[in-house]
Amino acid sequence: MINGSDVALRGHENKPSSDGASALGTHGPAAKLKDANPSEIPPASGLGGRQNAVTISDILERRAKAGRLIAPTASYSDSDMFKGPQVGKPKSKSMEHHLSPESLSRHPCSLKQAARHLKTPGLISLGGGLPCAEYFPIDSITLKVPNPPHFSEAATASSGAEVRIGKYDVTDPTIQGTYDLSIALNYAQATGSAQLSRFVTEHTELVHNPPYSDWRSCLTVGSTGALEQTLRMLCDGPERKDCMLTEEYSFATALETAGPLGIKVVGIKMDEQGLLPEAMDELLTNWKPEERGGAEEAGNPTGATQGLERRRALYEVARKHDVFVIEDEPYYYIQMPLEMTTGSAKEEETVESFIASLIPSLLSMDVDGRVLRMDSFSKVVVPGSRVGWVTASEDIIERFIRHAEVCNQGPSGISQVILYKLLDEQWGHEGYFKWLMNLRGEYTKRRDTMVAAVEKFLPKEVVSWSVPVSGMFYWLKVDHTQHPGIQAGKPILEVEEEIFNSCIAKGVLVARGSWFRAEQDTEPNELFFRATFAAATAENMTEAIRRFGDAVRESFKL
Amino acid sequence: MINGSDVALRGHENKPSSDGASALGTHGPAAKLKDANPSEIPPASGLGGRQNAVTISDILERRAKAGRLIAPTASYSDSDMFKGPQVGKPKSKSMEHHLSPESLSRHPCSLKQAARHLKTPGLISLGGGLPCAEYFPIDSITLKVPNPPHFSEAATASSGAEVRIGKYDVTDPTIQGTYDLSIALNYAQATGSAQLSRFVTEHTELVHNPPYSDWRSCLTVGSTGALEQTLRMLCDGPERKDCMLTEEYSFATALETAGPLGIKVVGIKMDEQGLLPEAMDELLTNWKPEERGGAEEAGNPTGATQGLERRRALYEVARKHDVFVIEDEPYYYIQMPLEMTTGSAKEEETVESFIASLIPSLLSMDVDGRVLRMDSFSKVVVPGSRVGWVTASEDIIERFIRHAEVCNQGPSGISQVILYKLLDEQWGHEGYFKWLMNLRGEYTKRRDTMVAAVEKFLPKEVVSWSVPVSGMFYWLKVDHTQHPGIQAGKPILEVEEEIFNSCIAKGVLVARGSWFRAEQDTEPNELFFRATFAAATAENMTEAIRRFGDAVRESFKL
Repeated sequence: MINGSDVALRGHENKPSSDGASALGTHGPAAKLKDANPSEIPPASGLGGRQNAVTISDILERRAKAGRLIAPTASYSDSDMFKGPQVGKPKSKSMEHHLSPESLSRHPCSLKQAARHLKTPGLISLGGGLPCAEYFPIDSITLKVPNPPHFSEAATASSGAEVRIGKYDVTDPTIQGTYDLSIALNYAQATGSAQLSRFVTEHTELVHNPPYSDWRSCLTVGSTGALEQTLRMLCDGPERKDCMLTEEYSFATALETAGPLGIKVVGIKMDEQGLLPEAMDELLTNWKPEERGGAEEAGNPTGATQGLERRRALYEVARKHDVFVIEDEPYYYIQMPLEMTTGSAKEEETVESFIASLIPSLLSMDVDGRVLRMDSFSKVVVPGSRVGWVTASEDIIERFIRHAEVCNQGPSGISQVILYKLLDEQWGHEGYFKWLMNLRGEYTKRRDTMVAAVEKFLPKEVVSWSVPVSGMFYWLKVDHTQHPGIQAGKPILEVEEEIFNSCIAKGVLVARGSWFRAEQDTEPNELFFRATFAAATAENMTEAIRRFGDAVRESFKL
Repeated sequence: MINGSDVALRGHENKPSSDGASALGTHGPAAKLKDANPSEIPPASGLGGRQNAVTISDILERRAKAGRLIAPTASYSDSDMFKGPQVGKPKSKSMEHHLSPESLSRHPCSLKQAARHLKTPGLISLGGGLPCAEYFPIDSITLKVPNPPHFSEAATASSGAEVRIGKYDVTDPTIQGTYDLSIALNYAQATGSAQLSRFVTEHTELVHNPPYSDWRSCLTVGSTGALEQTLRMLCDGPERKDCMLTEEYSFATALETAGPLGIKVVGIKMDEQGLLPEAMDELLTNWKPEERGGAEEAGNPTGATQGLERRRALYEVARKHDVFVIEDEPYYYIQMPLEMTTGSAKEEETVESFIASLIPSLLSMDVDGRVLRMDSFSKVVVPGSRVGWVTASEDIIERFIRHAEVCNQGPSGISQVILYKLLDEQWGHEGYFKWLMNLRGEYTKRRDTMVAAVEKFLPKEVVSWSVPVSGMFYWLKVDHTQHPGIQAGKPILEVEEEIFNSCIAKGVLVARGSWFRAEQDTEPNELFFRATFAAATAENMTEAIRRFGDAVRESFKL
């Protein structure tokens, strides 16, 4: 079972990201696959080209037909309830052979299963120990939030909307609410509430529209937790001989999650568009189980700027070698234009053109149901909500839920009701997309500040970079071969540490490239640093880059 | 490593609980230990008798001396910062031999470790990818909450307090807040925020005051998640031959958590005070590793009504056999008087006398640091917050945090700031204890409604029970030997199912006793049902018990 388990991690939350290293081209040439079998090429509808796209009007029409969503305390829901008709789509293929013994042995919670009887008319429950809402010491929660498209803090403070969440809004006939505190503050299903599930399911259909019929979404406690659950579902077993393939440089926390589970991480060669499909294909074709602890795994984490053709090629390699793919793309909506901007987001852009401009996800081309995509509100709404969601085939999501029931029990209900009120009731899908468009514009401005700073302050004779076109990070390559210490035989890691410490002494914290190396047990042969443009003010960011430049100059004796 | 790992689970979240089966006596006679070694008896300060108790005044004085808590975004904190002087207490003993290979192999998160440099004056961080608070689309959150001691919904609606949480309250010189949205909505340490950690650390010291010096508390995503983390920390390993000892009947979800991890659950004989120390001692004394998969584990989950002497005896058995104990006591504050009440909680009771009246926890008598106690806000504030905390020795908590960093990353910041504002700033420790006292009174009234209903409607010739003195459940024993079907050879499980289905048909949902059996792979030889008095109205509860009585009568042909 475990030896047949193949996992690929695709994504870049917080990781240095090939995006940063990508100078150009979100639409690079397709990688040519060796031995590609033409019969494996998915049908056109699976190419992620947004054929048969679902629109916001479709969703609104569907909702109007369905009437008010009735989902009381701890009620069961399934994201299938919120999908449109999946006409002409095939069913997913079974991925059961990828599941770990731990995952396969999970049974539904008996107490949660009993909840299905609650639908019986007139039934009184003395079953689950759900506390009585009467004893929840919060009568209401009121939020002050922006009115789209006036998203600035000043506009929110002066003319934002007041959104009130009462305790009994759902049963109050004068309000007829959909979600209230009596529900949100109580226990809920581990899938998350029906209310927020509906929103993320519809959002996923609007953006990704998976090309198989039985896809599902399920709320998570964020992508870090979702990754751990997914790795235990796919790789965890008594033998623990699984491997995870990622880009050579990957998200540090993902590597730290995999290690203690006994999962070997294998780095795949990258170029400026991320992981190379040919390299992955070659590795898997020549895979010798005995050399890699008996596992036959493969992976593929790359940046969001990976072009459509590259993504298609990677997906085909995964199909060819029956690899299961984890797609982790928290910065999906922060896809920035390469050209420097001077003002805010393009005024003429519509929600439709924004969606159409996004590079298709692997999920959107996944005809088999071999991709589990992780999304998160952390980077684009608030990290402190600890809410995200995963999308995969029904069978995979069912196993994921079985685990969630006995670990986190789903995300905070307080977070859920606040996100629901903001995103669904106050903004709606249209407003949320406008928020994302605005956010992309804001981060583009920040990136441009850093572009100017690195151009001005970094010694180009030893530091090189590419303008990042997605995410929140600059990935800075330092030419170690010119370093006097390295020329005298010092290890790269030592020089990296010296420069890092010198940065701290000069008053700037950057991340060390070695933290992100997939294969931590080998010696690095390159020298990188990562700098974020997410947090500091323009003035501080510029000063910080100046200090970093000084530290590098000093170390290289320039 | 794994073969030396011993785990005991003590607790009863949602489980049928010996409490329910306990007619009398929270202070039964001490179990006599065979072969007890006098040198193992802990010193007087470790007996949980609340010697040298810390008072609320001590805490207030300590806070006044310390000045305003300064804990900005993602800042590191340690619950040791919030404890009083631990004068005259020994250090905990090492429990490293109980840890699993998975837990032992965890390293600190490199990105989170880098956060310690943030204290350097003038440092600008381009390190972690924390989004900028400017882009958090919530300007403020305002809560309407009760003013102690006026806790009713009506009083809250008419004269409750309005508590506002602004985005920049901490840096606003006119407010000088301690915790605000710019902090709570961003990423945080996996330990939880310093602000809420301080509250739970002080609360733990007020109630449990562990008798060793290096204890720590750490926030969790609730006790279900905390249990999974703890089991993986103690029992998860490649060999997976660990056992967990619990009461014969235990919390269903705990059993469902342990199973897929390959942990064998062993049920220990109980009486009306829960798990029998003599039975546990005998089992462990005669433990044959080869009979139980090579593990040498033991456990002890019992009800909160376990008397002090019983708890001491159990703790001594755990010491004698070097067993690690998980104490799960979410209903700790719902300790109800045996006598029926007619009104609200005793008016004359003070916070001090309430704390003194609580049966001491195992944590309060843990001189070794071999107990990990799990607490939760779910049963006594709101389950939907998904916030709880664990308390154990520094070394154990450190390992727990390493896991949290790569799974849930700590609880929702939105939940944390709301709980902090309510419990710490609005109510304070005094107000929170008054809330707990009030809640105990409310659940006692509900229990009494069910007492009256079972007396009136259940056929005493076949159903027996004890008045529950803690928790939220009635545990109903049905005398299967009188059942015509069983007399004719039917298995107990089949009869249990028939009665359960008949209940559903008659309009009442109860929980089946077999769901809570520790040893699921053996045939039950008793018949139980569990009914909660937590949720239904008095009228519905009474009607539901009438229906249950009908179902039993019908099945027994009475």
